Amino acid sequence: MSRDLRGPGPGPGPEALAALAEWVAVESVSSDPDRAAQVGRSARWLVDALHGAGWPRAEVWETDGLPAVYGCRPAADPGAPVLLVYSHHDVHPADPSEWRVTAPFTPRLRAGRLYGRGASDAKGQIMCHLWALRAHLAQREAPAVTVKYLVEGEEEIGSGHLAQLLSEHAGELAADVVMVSDTMLWSLDEPAVCTLVRGSVTATLTVRGARRDLHSGAFSGAAANPVFELCRLLGLLRDGSGRVGLPRFYDAVSDPGPALRASLDTLPFRLSDWLAETGTFRADGEAGFGVPQRLWTRPSVEVARLTAGGGGAPSLGLIPAEAAADILLRLVPGQRADEVAGQLRTWLDGNRQPDFHYGLDVSPTISDPYATPEDHPALGALLRAVGGAYGAPARRIGNGGAAPAAQLSRACDAPVLFFGTGLPGDHWHGPDERAEVRALELGVRALAGFFDGLAALPRPW
Amino acid sequence: MSRDLRGPGPGPGPEALAALAEWVAVESVSSDPDRAAQVGRSARWLVDALHGAGWPRAEVWETDGLPAVYGCRPAADPGAPVLLVYSHHDVHPADPSEWRVTAPFTPRLRAGRLYGRGASDAKGQIMCHLWALRAHLAQREAPAVTVKYLVEGEEEIGSGHLAQLLSEHAGELAADVVMVSDTMLWSLDEPAVCTLVRGSVTATLTVRGARRDLHSGAFSGAAANPVFELCRLLGLLRDGSGRVGLPRFYDAVSDPGPALRASLDTLPFRLSDWLAETGTFRADGEAGFGVPQRLWTRPSVEVARLTAGGGGAPSLGLIPAEAAADILLRLVPGQRADEVAGQLRTWLDGNRQPDFHYGLDVSPTISDPYATPEDHPALGALLRAVGGAYGAPARRIGNGGAAPAAQLSRACDAPVLFFGTGLPGDHWHGPDERAEVRALELGVRALAGFFDGLAALPRPW
Repeated sequence: MSRDLRGPGPGPGPEALAALAEWVAVESVSSDPDRAAQVGRSARWLVDALHGAGWPRAEVWETDGLPAVYGCRPAADPGAPVLLVYSHHDVHPADPSEWRVTAPFTPRLRAGRLYGRGASDAKGQIMCHLWALRAHLAQREAPAVTVKYLVEGEEEIGSGHLAQLLSEHAGELAADVVMVSDTMLWSLDEPAVCTLVRGSVTATLTVRGARRDLHSGAFSGAAANPVFELCRLLGLLRDGSGRVGLPRFYDAVSDPGPALRASLDTLPFRLSDWLAETGTFRADGEAGFGVPQRLWTRPSVEVARLTAGGGGAPSLGLIPAEAAADILLRLVPGQRADEVAGQLRTWLDGNRQPDFHYGLDVSPTISDPYATPEDHPALGALLRAVGGAYGAPARRIGNGGAAPAAQLSRACDAPVLFFGTGLPGDHWHGPDERAEVRALELGVRALAGFFDGLAALPRPW
Repeated sequence: MSRDLRGPGPGPGPEALAALAEWVAVESVSSDPDRAAQVGRSARWLVDALHGAGWPRAEVWETDGLPAVYGCRPAADPGAPVLLVYSHHDVHPADPSEWRVTAPFTPRLRAGRLYGRGASDAKGQIMCHLWALRAHLAQREAPAVTVKYLVEGEEEIGSGHLAQLLSEHAGELAADVVMVSDTMLWSLDEPAVCTLVRGSVTATLTVRGARRDLHSGAFSGAAANPVFELCRLLGLLRDGSGRVGLPRFYDAVSDPGPALRASLDTLPFRLSDWLAETGTFRADGEAGFGVPQRLWTRPSVEVARLTAGGGGAPSLGLIPAEAAADILLRLVPGQRADEVAGQLRTWLDGNRQPDFHYGLDVSPTISDPYATPEDHPALGALLRAVGGAYGAPARRIGNGGAAPAAQLSRACDAPVLFFGTGLPGDHWHGPDERAEVRALELGVRALAGFFDGLAALPRPW
């Protein structure tokens, strides 16, 4: 069983979990302007935790938006590798009415899981790093590698000020390797390291058929209804075989590489388990590819929101003047977010009908996909450390979500590794989000081993 | 110019318009539970107005929903025809932020138009009746026909308790002819009487792809997105040529009859005027038919509301578990609402895909289409009266909206006539709704003439 981290053991004990729960109780919902002060409280909580753990440097970094946290714990050897850990302390909003096990910000430990918004995405992941470093330091004064943290407060709303942080603090953020800790495992039985994250382009498409909503009794049958036009366009955006309908969209899609491809081909994927974990009734998507490939190495398109017609008003009396869809494209290595945004505009231009008015508002928070160089020695060290912790060879997997990996890699001119303790069943962004304590325990072991392994690598890389 | 109705003249004078404005200021929004008391106030206002006009009987009729008003003004001759006028005193909700000329419930007279929610739909139409009867009574003690009013308070929310009223008060509502006053004219230059209203079926279609919303980063590309499935279905519901895609939907559609067909074929319709009046950019709809035919004598389908994804929350992080559309079908004579509701269910059953969950919730407030018997003498009297008021022969038109005409005709075992003073540019259900004072003036003249004409018809019909 797990022991308290005040002792020398590797897992998070009751006091460590109580500390995580205290942090999860802070409602750091970045999308809610009324809770900006809570995001600030969350940042200060982490700074205090770092100071409490003996970090010589830990501070809140203000931005023009919500605050980030920076910390640095230097190695004894000034020539030791520098590891920059990126994650986020803000959380997705939560609708309390949908939560069954506990209220979103009243964390509860039950049957080996800590429930609460942010327990897995991503406060648990950050605490895992802290606990691992504490374990690593049980037998020494200073870590074998210099560890830096950059924990931002706007990840759930698109990391709008990350570029500002990376630019203003370039010196302090210099690193030999970056580790993004905001990704998922595959399962507790199957040790895995993510080596690829998809990029994303989000946009809002609007179709307008009239200057104002129209009385349906008076005009039905002759007025242009933008809903049908929006549906026509969305039907073109994803065809019947699950492929994205943008022009030249697949031209730049690259192969995931032999190591990741081989790993995915042998992944013990059971559809029934996946359906149960996700709460879905079917696996959908691009014909000719399995679910893991569709999730990680193939691009995709989703509609995340549809809007037409009134809110509370009895809508049936009106033909809506406007209909809108929030579109989300996921990209894979080879594709560039700015190019895909251009393809989206070209696609719309090629499919307009006369006398509808169209709008396409591409979000500024687009992100490029990223793949860790498959033969990089730091990746090797991570694979060995994870394999050692689990007692079985770690395989490579991907991650379907956008992380600012490409941005971090460019800013630091360093490779990016991914290390996560989330599981597909953790309900990220959904009700009853939870972190598996066992995943955190194994994460502590893996990271503690990784610090040693990274320090032992022959340099230069 | 118009004169005050305290005098003998036919038009609504300043005091009459001030009274209408006072009524329009009552926020009788039936869809808003917080304004139920206002709907009650509106009913009492009308009862007081009827008493003030010397009606021997005028009272509020309570229902299990919102109150209606009943009034009866008997003719001197007990054998005179009985005319039951149906309309409604509740109004559609209004968003003040969209109104430019005045606030929705702060009526304002400007350039020959009275602006305010309900000024045209339908409080102005009801007052028109009252003024006409007062003019009719200028030279006599009692009207030439017995006039009854049934003015309900739930028309904008589907007339849910009209059946209850018709059943509980069958005796008091007995009539030889029913007049629905909730329809529109064509234009002030082109006198017209509506002889056909479409019916309606409304339903909410839901598609569910998962038990809960899903993190799009983790699941995009392999999870079933109900938005695409909903769009596919809506694309089948109305095909590219504007026809409704339900099975056997057109089988029962009947010809509008030679009189109405001939009238519509010669209607001076100018597309540019219609586009300007409606604020639309194009005329859409069923191929092979003109705009008037599409609006009045052909069935249609609209989507009045689309819903998928969160409200205020940043939706782009989630694949919605469910997507929904409010569907509105307009029916023409020959079609039956219950049969079309069945066709909708059959259509959905024939187009389901495995592993999506579907729901179809047909509203209980469906209504059948209705056409006034084209040779009925009471219709002849109305056509002559309208023609007389305008000084030009009145043509026949239709009305695209649902009115409970079929229900009233069945309950009273009597033909239904339509008489409206609304104009297509009156912005029913939209911002800056207004009534044209000139249309009210001409309406007073026409109705005053109709009372005489109806009384003079040889009986039995």
